[in-house]
Amino acid sequence: MTDKNIPRAILLFSCPDSKGIVAEVTHFISVYGGNITDSNQHNDSETNTFFMRVAWDISDFDIPRDKITQAFEPIAIKYNMDWRIEFSDRKTRMAIFVSKFDHCLYDILLRNKEGEIDADIAMILSNHKDAEPIAEYFDIPFYYFPVKRENKTELEKEEISLLKKNNIDLVVLARYMQILSPEFVKEFRNKIINIHHSFLPAFAGAKPYHKAFERGVKIIGATSHYVTEDLDEGPIIEQDVVRVSHKDGIPDLIRKGRDIEKLVLSRALKLHIDHRILVFRNRTVVFD
Amino acid sequence: MTDKNIPRAILLFSCPDSKGIVAEVTHFISVYGGNITDSNQHNDSETNTFFMRVAWDISDFDIPRDKITQAFEPIAIKYNMDWRIEFSDRKTRMAIFVSKFDHCLYDILLRNKEGEIDADIAMILSNHKDAEPIAEYFDIPFYYFPVKRENKTELEKEEISLLKKNNIDLVVLARYMQILSPEFVKEFRNKIINIHHSFLPAFAGAKPYHKAFERGVKIIGATSHYVTEDLDEGPIIEQDVVRVSHKDGIPDLIRKGRDIEKLVLSRALKLHIDHRILVFRNRTVVFD
Amino acid sequence: MTDKNIPRAILLFSCPDSKGIVAEVTHFISVYGGNITDSNQHNDSETNTFFMRVAWDISDFDIPRDKITQAFEPIAIKYNMDWRIEFSDRKTRMAIFVSKFDHCLYDILLRNKEGEIDADIAMILSNHKDAEPIAEYFDIPFYYFPVKRENKTELEKEEISLLKKNNIDLVVLARYMQILSPEFVKEFRNKIINIHHSFLPAFAGAKPYHKAFERGVKIIGATSHYVTEDLDEGPIIEQDVVRVSHKDGIPDLIRKGRDIEKLVLSRALKLHIDHRILVFRNRTVVFD
Amino acid sequence: MTDKNIPRAILLFSCPDSKGIVAEVTHFISVYGGNITDSNQHNDSETNTFFMRVAWDISDFDIPRDKITQAFEPIAIKYNMDWRIEFSDRKTRMAIFVSKFDHCLYDILLRNKEGEIDADIAMILSNHKDAEPIAEYFDIPFYYFPVKRENKTELEKEEISLLKKNNIDLVVLARYMQILSPEFVKEFRNKIINIHHSFLPAFAGAKPYHKAFERGVKIIGATSHYVTEDLDEGPIIEQDVVRVSHKDGIPDLIRKGRDIEKLVLSRALKLHIDHRILVFRNRTVVFD
Repeated sequence: MTDKNIPRAILLFSCPDSKGIVAEVTHFISVYGGNITDSNQHNDSETNTFFMRVAWDISDFDIPRDKITQAFEPIAIKYNMDWRIEFSDRKTRMAIFVSKFDHCLYDILLRNKEGEIDADIAMILSNHKDAEPIAEYFDIPFYYFPVKRENKTELEKEEISLLKKNNIDLVVLARYMQILSPEFVKEFRNKIINIHHSFLPAFAGAKPYHKAFERGVKIIGATSHYVTEDLDEGPIIEQDVVRVSHKDGIPDLIRKGRDIEKLVLSRALKLHIDHRILVFRNRTVVFD
Repeated sequence: MTDKNIPRAILLFSCPDSKGIVAEVTHFISVYGGNITDSNQHNDSETNTFFMRVAWDISDFDIPRDKITQAFEPIAIKYNMDWRIEFSDRKTRMAIFVSKFDHCLYDILLRNKEGEIDADIAMILSNHKDAEPIAEYFDIPFYYFPVKRENKTELEKEEISLLKKNNIDLVVLARYMQILSPEFVKEFRNKIINIHHSFLPAFAGAKPYHKAFERGVKIIGATSHYVTEDLDEGPIIEQDVVRVSHKDGIPDLIRKGRDIEKLVLSRALKLHIDHRILVFRNRTVVFD
Repeated sequence: MTDKNIPRAILLFSCPDSKGIVAEVTHFISVYGGNITDSNQHNDSETNTFFMRVAWDISDFDIPRDKITQAFEPIAIKYNMDWRIEFSDRKTRMAIFVSKFDHCLYDILLRNKEGEIDADIAMILSNHKDAEPIAEYFDIPFYYFPVKRENKTELEKEEISLLKKNNIDLVVLARYMQILSPEFVKEFRNKIINIHHSFLPAFAGAKPYHKAFERGVKIIGATSHYVTEDLDEGPIIEQDVVRVSHKDGIPDLIRKGRDIEKLVLSRALKLHIDHRILVFRNRTVVFD
Repeated sequence: MTDKNIPRAILLFSCPDSKGIVAEVTHFISVYGGNITDSNQHNDSETNTFFMRVAWDISDFDIPRDKITQAFEPIAIKYNMDWRIEFSDRKTRMAIFVSKFDHCLYDILLRNKEGEIDADIAMILSNHKDAEPIAEYFDIPFYYFPVKRENKTELEKEEISLLKKNNIDLVVLARYMQILSPEFVKEFRNKIINIHHSFLPAFAGAKPYHKAFERGVKIIGATSHYVTEDLDEGPIIEQDVVRVSHKDGIPDLIRKGRDIEKLVLSRALKLHIDHRILVFRNRTVVFD
């Protein structure tokens, strides 16, 4: 409900909890003429860790935007914060990795067109050529990397180089059927979002719909998470489910699953590009 | 996730939006040694109204609890706030009104026993004697008011007097099949919570399950709301739904509906007694 | 889970309930060498009406498909059935009406491409030219009918003529912002499916998201129904909902609503083209 | 929607699929004057297995009820059926096992009182005395079996003997915190229903809410299943989920989980006692 046209700074941090943090942070914003438009906090009582997201209108802020980080740093140091500052009018630059299934790809591109996923979709990369006409229709550069076991190291290097050169800050695996190497993952810590077609931690790994059918579950799910070195073990951003029955064979699970894959991935992307997610100990704090 | 044993003050307010409110409120708490445990805010851009709920640990607060209101008043006046301060260790005193259906009554009493609805259930009032043994089992005083058209004005006066004498601050209509008079409602503004067995505004008034069956809907609902002078028109606190089909006759709708009536009413009660609701222009802001 | 490649006959009927119907119908199928692949029945106890849908493999059926109707007729007459026979390998010919919003249009076209909505999409009709490039991308004929108050009667006649000429048997209003005349509706009884962006009967008519916001509901919905002469009063096929909160302004309701509009409309279309719906007294019996 | 007062026979079977089964079964019912009130079938195309549930009014059935099994047997043998016949007016005799948590126990007892779970609750067994006053309030015999590692074999024998003597045909583990021995399980094949407080197969075994919190899932679940020798691996009857967030600590997961545990267990019990479940290869076919 926030007016999207107002430029805002968004501060996200976690730190050991102590008195006066909120007061000091909000005073910093207020004293320089910022108007807080959105504020959320959370306290993890188990670890005594404090989390906060605060956004403020910087139209009349006395500190120019390129000096805000520097100005806030003393407070961050004082409270030992893990922090970052984002700006609402700087669009996330996104690269979409895809294989042959195109439903998530279409979904992201259409939501982008609607302004719902308000990012710069800078490129589509694929190990197949199937998505090339889609890229063309939506006028997005398409790159073909026929990754195979024998050329994976080399092609991943090229991919990383391409992503870096294009200032990509979010890699989306939109049903990309390849596992990224630990080296790739390290380059984009908390910047790779995957959609897994099961309700994790159930049915991690390959062929989750087949496993779900075999086990006879009455509900199937989808999970969007940040990619870490451990397959399907990264911090979960969003999940959703759909009811199934004995009437649903594997093709039905796949069909019903597509709808939740699209919804879950797109919600996760929106939360990420709106800078609403903090990662802490392989879990996420999502300020929606 | 907040430790329930820490005594906290909870400030709730709405006011015209302007710069510096959050900073001033949090500074007030911080400067007297309060530690904020929970904070939420909302801005209604249409009316430019600001809403806030902030809770702080008062164990080491420099202002004694009976002076906090007085101390905060200048800020409230400055920003033209509609405000109140509650204390987490003062339990809401609840009266439950019930007729013959007892599923919501049992549900509230059992959740109270679990500590989930953490209120003092001071009494059960009914226009029937059916619930008396239930009251006895849970050791709650039971009052029988056989309200009829001809004695309604008189009995309502007695009820109001009984409620006032017992310092009741929340009246729960747990499938109470009587309409309260405007006079009664006025005495407990935003302090009467009803459960209506439909997805309002669909099927307001009597026999909603019959109407839902007649219309052939594929989903039925329940709505918990504050009672106002306009029947089923008060501010909605919580709603939920359940899927139905052509296989469900009216008795099935009634059966399926019971489950969501219980869930929706109990969630609304928990939100109210945890002081998470602000009412504004016949809508609610719910800080959960 | 039925093998789509097996040609099947699908019998749907309703009739006054009496003994032996199921036995007689299944005997008819069995005696001529049909193998039942799917069977559903329902009894409306209020009106004592019996409903049945039964599908059978006709690969080895002794009656040629163009004689099945004639062969079954005596049974239909005996039990006073309202009945029809469909064939699984005859695709429904669909025309999509659309205005400016294209999310439902894209959704149907993509599901059609996936084989999920297994119809012949014969044409797209619109009162605006916005959807023309979409039609082109998916290679579907596009027709522009700039319907206005003054030319409505005339243009509707042309539309009806075009639909008839092309043997259209399902008209889909995919967020078509025009009301069809009673004359149009009469031509396609139970063959026009609309998506309404509210949880009917709540918020019928124009601007349901604005009304939902105004009322302060906590859940919004979408409803797919057959179009009748009474606006938003036709038999409901499918509904679904999504949770909202005070944080959601009208643009958020519109955004969240798009997802359920797409899901609800596509489910209704799938049920219709799979011949799973019987209409009875302005309600639907849906054999899924 | 079926009239509960009409006595009905309910035939359930699975067998290798072949032509004419439905016709032969329905002819058997029809020819002796039975009126089919409910019929469902399913074909598992992977294993080519056919499943059917058919219920018929036996008020005017020409075969007395104690001869129906014998009369049907030739058809069962012909098609190599795994089959049983139940009667709607013979109530399932249920024993509830419980430990200290009483929310599922109360829930079942209250639904039984409402007529929703229409069984004879013959006894409550527990390894603690906490539930004794509840048993007393609802007027159900209570048995105390303080099962410990050292006396487990012996006490289980006594339990089995007690259950047999009382003709118990359904054992409900309503958050019973003991694992039954394989010997116990063998005695009640497909007649023991457990509620597990996770979305199986995720978080099988002990402390699922703690594991769910640790993993950072965004949705938690509950699963009702038949108990087999493999812990939490039996055929799943019903599952449901509830959304959680970073705000929910373990006590919140436990609280939110209670609601779905109650709902899922009670739905599974209703399906079982209404004879709507067939077990096949560790999965269930549920004709609802």
